[in-house]
Amino acid sequence: MKQETICAVSTPPGKGGIAVIRISGEKAIEITDPLFLPAKQFCNIKDMQAYTCAYGQIKTEKGATLDQVVLTLFKAPHSFTGEDCVEIACHGSLYIQQQLIQLLICNGCRLALPGEFTQRAFFNGKMDLSQAEAVADLIASDSEASHRLAMNQMRGDFSRELSRLRNALIDFASLIELELDFSEEDVAFADRKQLSTLIESVEHSMQKLANSFQIGNALKNGIPVAIVGETNAGKSTLLNALLHDEKAIVSDIHGTTRDAIEDTINLQGLSFRFIDTAGIRDTSDRIESQGIELAYKKLDQASIVLWVIDSTSPNEKIVDLGKNIFPHIQNKKLILVFNKSDLLSAKEKQQKEQLFAEKPFDRIFISARQNEHISELENLIVTSAQLSNIDNNDIVVTNARHYEILVKSLDTIHRVQQSLNDGISADFIAQDIREIIHYIGEITGEISTTDILSNIFSKFCVGK
Amino acid sequence: MKQETICAVSTPPGKGGIAVIRISGEKAIEITDPLFLPAKQFCNIKDMQAYTCAYGQIKTEKGATLDQVVLTLFKAPHSFTGEDCVEIACHGSLYIQQQLIQLLICNGCRLALPGEFTQRAFFNGKMDLSQAEAVADLIASDSEASHRLAMNQMRGDFSRELSRLRNALIDFASLIELELDFSEEDVAFADRKQLSTLIESVEHSMQKLANSFQIGNALKNGIPVAIVGETNAGKSTLLNALLHDEKAIVSDIHGTTRDAIEDTINLQGLSFRFIDTAGIRDTSDRIESQGIELAYKKLDQASIVLWVIDSTSPNEKIVDLGKNIFPHIQNKKLILVFNKSDLLSAKEKQQKEQLFAEKPFDRIFISARQNEHISELENLIVTSAQLSNIDNNDIVVTNARHYEILVKSLDTIHRVQQSLNDGISADFIAQDIREIIHYIGEITGEISTTDILSNIFSKFCVGK
Repeated sequence: MKQETICAVSTPPGKGGIAVIRISGEKAIEITDPLFLPAKQFCNIKDMQAYTCAYGQIKTEKGATLDQVVLTLFKAPHSFTGEDCVEIACHGSLYIQQQLIQLLICNGCRLALPGEFTQRAFFNGKMDLSQAEAVADLIASDSEASHRLAMNQMRGDFSRELSRLRNALIDFASLIELELDFSEEDVAFADRKQLSTLIESVEHSMQKLANSFQIGNALKNGIPVAIVGETNAGKSTLLNALLHDEKAIVSDIHGTTRDAIEDTINLQGLSFRFIDTAGIRDTSDRIESQGIELAYKKLDQASIVLWVIDSTSPNEKIVDLGKNIFPHIQNKKLILVFNKSDLLSAKEKQQKEQLFAEKPFDRIFISARQNEHISELENLIVTSAQLSNIDNNDIVVTNARHYEILVKSLDTIHRVQQSLNDGISADFIAQDIREIIHYIGEITGEISTTDILSNIFSKFCVGK
Repeated sequence: MKQETICAVSTPPGKGGIAVIRISGEKAIEITDPLFLPAKQFCNIKDMQAYTCAYGQIKTEKGATLDQVVLTLFKAPHSFTGEDCVEIACHGSLYIQQQLIQLLICNGCRLALPGEFTQRAFFNGKMDLSQAEAVADLIASDSEASHRLAMNQMRGDFSRELSRLRNALIDFASLIELELDFSEEDVAFADRKQLSTLIESVEHSMQKLANSFQIGNALKNGIPVAIVGETNAGKSTLLNALLHDEKAIVSDIHGTTRDAIEDTINLQGLSFRFIDTAGIRDTSDRIESQGIELAYKKLDQASIVLWVIDSTSPNEKIVDLGKNIFPHIQNKKLILVFNKSDLLSAKEKQQKEQLFAEKPFDRIFISARQNEHISELENLIVTSAQLSNIDNNDIVVTNARHYEILVKSLDTIHRVQQSLNDGISADFIAQDIREIIHYIGEITGEISTTDILSNIFSKFCVGK
């Protein structure tokens, strides 16, 4: 297939020490060669070895020097895209980046679409579709957990599991087809038992993958944590206290702005997404008002709830507030966070400890302002995420598209199981099996449509 | 000198397809080698040739794969810093960038200070100080003109001119010292004429350099253009119309946000900095009020003034407004911009053309809203910048530090000239000449103090 040669800035947008422009395609060398004047006269891009680089100047059509650059050459098929690839590391001025791209376009390149380099890697068999999708996840990953999941997927763990399932289904299909061959002779259904066992094993594996999505999605996008409590209970101070350590680490890298991390906090390698539920008040007449109901509705998104309690409030008030909160936390982990506990006497603290003693909730006494017991709270939040049963090597589905396909496949598998039980004719069952194999192909990209691909790759950044 | 090995993210801050981590110093290879597992087992960083790259994995201390990367090796002295240098191109996730930096720091690197790579290039004789300063200017450059100036300075044009002046001053010093040797014999001052000629030529060159700063500064930071006019004259619409083409070009590169270009507009490769002077009204009683005076004061910063006139205003009103504006535009180019001219009849337009006919100002009829004659206005603004007398190869001083040193040097030169005229003793003159040579050394970095260096390099971005 003839492909245009594409180019794009592959490094993050903006100004920096170095920017890297990537050129990929049949004509990558031909287009770049006349623009590049190597410092060593004898070194010509056409004569360069793959996996070597050269220092030199980029010349404009007027012969002026645009920049002093380092140019690296990758030759097909041993490049990211599988095509000839040239990477130019120039000074990271916006003007230079823009001019260099324009020079390349004038010389016959086309500006790459978002994700087009990765799309070519997929087309050229360097990776399957689920691995290509993992590249975008890897770039977006902002915690140890989301990074590990993306890396495992990019390495092909998920693809291998799908390939195993696919082979099992092909085995199943051949057994069914054996039955079909003999159908006119009306042989006994002796092997239906074997078929049931096989499909049960496929169903089990597929269900496990589908189940992992809830955790995978939480790990990828942050485990949702709602903070409830009266407005003056110290919610913001607590958020800042939790954010503190993280900010210190992140600030090593410039540009990790507050906007980007917003209220997402990394604790012990996990990303937690804090949901603001301002406005929960005590049991006075306003409790039924629409605004408060809205706050409770937001609780539904959370899997962990921190109830920040102003420890200096009267016990009765806290008990009343509890009556309103408890009905909303089914299937969630609730942590009672007694804030401002530095203001309590020993006796008062004892009294607070008695509150809700009959309930199974975790409780902790902290002072957000004094930064007391914050790391203990962090431990409690991490434990509450209940991810201890996830092994580092477990395959976890993080992609909504994959999850949807798995759910569709499971529906069909259940139909197959029903058909087996009901003694339905083998050709109907074979058709269902082909359907599941087709679904799996959509994940790995053996089956793909322009719509699916453009939907996937348009979410990439340009330059990858 | 023993130097620590330093590391930093060299690409622009943020998330992108690729990020590049640069490691420089004696132990660059030793520190990176254990972290890198090459795809080809036999390829070890220690065995790699300079100017080659290798594909492989970065392994954490726990043996997990942090990322799949391309690693490039540069060996001293043939690297940007002049030291051994390793560049790792990883996926541009913030998490990976941060973890990789932390891995390197754990293994013995130190996080580089802003500009520290360039500072090492300077220390290792790869460039002089004015060239090092040009690296930062090059990265900051956002127009053809500022880019060209930075590139010329980085190539060493300015350094060569300074070296020429320095040699002339050393010649002068040796002549003076010749006189000193014979001073006890009270020889005639026959060679003072020759000395005068020599110092006059140095003074001329240095004055030319110092004079170029006004233009250099304008080219680097944008030529200041004030827009005056009544609030409803169409000033904002005009700014948007001028911005239009530029935005279309800039948007090829992601991340060039409105914030960054603010009210700076690139026209034909020059950068123009528009100064907002809202609030100029007609000649009614409020004209003397403080606010309006402030607006006029802002005019002082401009070298070009666009007076945007609402063409539909009565002639008398325009004439009155002119009386208030004209006193404030000494030494500036004023352009009369008759906006909304699409609403004028032919006869009305003729009448407007008669306004201020006796004045030497450029005038143009446009419609900002209809985008009519905007490119003609652009041409007029560019011509008004009066940079036509600047040659592409002229040396232009753009750096305020250099300008200050040149001004100090000129003061001393003038003192030398005075001394020559007054027949002052040669040893005083020799001392002054030594002072000037010292000043020039401060520009090129032959003479430098920790203060000067830290002041210069702290303005760099980290990673360069």
